Amino acid sequence: MATVPSVSYSITVRLEVPAGGKAVSQLTHAVESAGGVVTALDVSNAGHEKLRIDVTCAARDTDHAQDIVDQLDAVEGVVIHKVSDRTFLMHLGGKIEMQSKVPLRTRDELSMAYTPGVARVSMAIARNPEDARRLTVKRNSVAVVTDGSAVLGLGNIGPAAALPVMEGKAALFKRFAGIDAWPICLDTQDTDEIVRIVRAIAPGFGGINLEDISAPRCFEIERRLRELLDIPVFHDDQHGTAICVLAALTNALRVVGKELSQVRITMAGAGAAGTAVLRLLLAAGARNMIVCDYRGAVHRGRDDLDESLRWIAEHTNAEDYSGDLRGAVKGADVFIGVSAPGILTGDDIASMAKDAVVFALANPEPEISPDEAREHAAVVATGRSDFPNQINNVLAFPGVFRGLLDAQAREVTEEMMLAAARALANVVTDDELGPNYIIPSVFQPDVATAVAAAVRESVEKRRS
Amino acid sequence: MATVPSVSYSITVRLEVPAGGKAVSQLTHAVESAGGVVTALDVSNAGHEKLRIDVTCAARDTDHAQDIVDQLDAVEGVVIHKVSDRTFLMHLGGKIEMQSKVPLRTRDELSMAYTPGVARVSMAIARNPEDARRLTVKRNSVAVVTDGSAVLGLGNIGPAAALPVMEGKAALFKRFAGIDAWPICLDTQDTDEIVRIVRAIAPGFGGINLEDISAPRCFEIERRLRELLDIPVFHDDQHGTAICVLAALTNALRVVGKELSQVRITMAGAGAAGTAVLRLLLAAGARNMIVCDYRGAVHRGRDDLDESLRWIAEHTNAEDYSGDLRGAVKGADVFIGVSAPGILTGDDIASMAKDAVVFALANPEPEISPDEAREHAAVVATGRSDFPNQINNVLAFPGVFRGLLDAQAREVTEEMMLAAARALANVVTDDELGPNYIIPSVFQPDVATAVAAAVRESVEKRRS
Repeated sequence: MATVPSVSYSITVRLEVPAGGKAVSQLTHAVESAGGVVTALDVSNAGHEKLRIDVTCAARDTDHAQDIVDQLDAVEGVVIHKVSDRTFLMHLGGKIEMQSKVPLRTRDELSMAYTPGVARVSMAIARNPEDARRLTVKRNSVAVVTDGSAVLGLGNIGPAAALPVMEGKAALFKRFAGIDAWPICLDTQDTDEIVRIVRAIAPGFGGINLEDISAPRCFEIERRLRELLDIPVFHDDQHGTAICVLAALTNALRVVGKELSQVRITMAGAGAAGTAVLRLLLAAGARNMIVCDYRGAVHRGRDDLDESLRWIAEHTNAEDYSGDLRGAVKGADVFIGVSAPGILTGDDIASMAKDAVVFALANPEPEISPDEAREHAAVVATGRSDFPNQINNVLAFPGVFRGLLDAQAREVTEEMMLAAARALANVVTDDELGPNYIIPSVFQPDVATAVAAAVRESVEKRRS
Repeated sequence: MATVPSVSYSITVRLEVPAGGKAVSQLTHAVESAGGVVTALDVSNAGHEKLRIDVTCAARDTDHAQDIVDQLDAVEGVVIHKVSDRTFLMHLGGKIEMQSKVPLRTRDELSMAYTPGVARVSMAIARNPEDARRLTVKRNSVAVVTDGSAVLGLGNIGPAAALPVMEGKAALFKRFAGIDAWPICLDTQDTDEIVRIVRAIAPGFGGINLEDISAPRCFEIERRLRELLDIPVFHDDQHGTAICVLAALTNALRVVGKELSQVRITMAGAGAAGTAVLRLLLAAGARNMIVCDYRGAVHRGRDDLDESLRWIAEHTNAEDYSGDLRGAVKGADVFIGVSAPGILTGDDIASMAKDAVVFALANPEPEISPDEAREHAAVVATGRSDFPNQINNVLAFPGVFRGLLDAQAREVTEEMMLAAARALANVVTDDELGPNYIIPSVFQPDVATAVAAAVRESVEKRRS
């Protein structure tokens, strides 16, 4: 699917070449002739007759990596030893670890962190359970819970295969917000059982981040857990996406000088992400929206409406438009796609209103090629890192949970999500704002802090 | 319960004294006259008229700490500001954290540790689930699972109050064996539900350490999980204790020159720990044992035998002795108590066979005062750190799990536990061995390595 070589598919080929010949100079050429990019060439052993060289290069995919190895093998005198995949090397033994924050060097330290000293801390919590938020890891911990049913774009690959993704998520929580997240990959896809399990493991965590659980089960699981638990429950695929989309849309409308309450918005996708985006946009003041799924516009007259689609039909599309996506896009100010690759053409975008905003967020292949969309739209955003305006959940969830944990929040509300979106939008200053910069980079250091402060304030306001 | 001041109950008193007078010199005296021990005296702010001083001192318990503060307050010119408890300070924000092992500084690193690179790792595991033991934290992780029903000697204090203990346990796993353990404190005490939950969360862990779950539920939970899971399930209160007792008894018998198969052993306690100790001693070759509970000796004629007690009656006490503990101790070579404080007297120990071995493991108050036992027994061990021969589970569980994880074990067997006990006993060399050194110190650096090697070897032998 990737169209250019990427370090996320980087291989290191250990090979031997004769020390005297021209082979060394031909290695880079061989990689390039196969369409790869050499990123490093390390001589790991130099003898009089032979050189051992580690050639590291970026490839597009598995087949392409094999092409590169074949080209290297074809260079005269080269003997290929071992081909390693950098991404796999990085994953060996896992990406996260547990660390003790207290020293355990001496008997005295042991007797404070463990028995007998710990008994007094336990008794303090037994007397006042709220103290767990002060005296334990609950203060700063989030369970990243999945059942492996809808992992990235890979589908229902199960809990073990989901683990590398959840470890990555945990690492992002730490990297961007100093949060101690631990992956919990569940070997069940039964809604009732998932609810029971998460309820039961909740005492040790300050928040629950649901991840990659397929719709419509994810709606019920989240709703029931929110009723049961006294810690925030946040399904990132839904609400993280919604917060980022609202922030990006706020800024895109700043660029084109339109009002959220005035614009006509057409969405493609009525799954978990689409529904959450819709709800948050409505809460933020959007008035004129149409949502399409693969059967066309969602309207009250359709005979296939489940609970979620019925809600959509009742809260959007006031005129009960019953046509297809193409018709719904015509004249719209904003298109937001959280659906499938290649469902729109340049002509469709050209049919939108003047100064159109296009968010084509299907990943890794957007609803329309961003380059084509840009010919006709004023602002274009995608989920991809190789185009401007990447809408990436990592802009939202670390800061959201940082704020929730710091405020010892017992829930996460729509108002808190709106505050997060406003804060995220406001990270982009008027000076910086432009068609190619409506949303900050994931490495912008202020993002999580700004989002966290807004969420904390919102929690405190609700409490007072 | 503690009889001497301990740093596990250490307070820091911030106070102000006049700079010129004699107050400073009277502070230490004040603490000592209250029976405390000054461990530090830090002047945190020195002015011409006033000094601010942090007096840190060890106390026996809460009342004693208050006595000390009162004595300090009585010193002329002293103004008490704030009293902090060092153990509580150490627990603020929790004792453990999650750390990322991979750098996430650049887009390239992000794209290998998370999307899109991680997708290939997930797909590799989807194709071959065993790869999770290589490419994820499962390689090195243990879930420390409790329901808070039997925490230390504190009883049924629930999951939140158990969390500081489980964090401590996780910290010990790291400190002594480099293992990434995470506490899972369950808000349920239903056997079926605990089994379902642990089964469901297992994909993310390489082992399950059950902790502080009350008997008899702990037996069934462990048995059923062992049948269901393809990773080792180990109830530390049972098997950790059993391994340490067997190792210590092996060495105690080396000291007195007796054979395990020949000695008569009387045990007090038929709970989780007692039953596990019994089973492992029998597996190691003990032949002549009597187990007593609070109703006296367990024998086939008792009408109150549940499943666990029936098993004991059928495997011990061949002559169906039906008297009390005192009678069972008479003439015995070995007494092992995992029961209640103060149930034996010096006379009872004097009635044992020559060169008696006494393990009085009830904590913090042993079955008999160790000083009294030593007047009549050749070897005495306790669970306390303030006497020689401390039998402490931390000698077993870190090494056991290190070995299991390194061997990618799918279960833990009696043979592996026997191997662990042998290795633990053998850490004490013939030169070191003596009545006051039958078991190594928890800080002896070889312990976990030796235990791990033995367990790993045992796993590999079973596999081949």
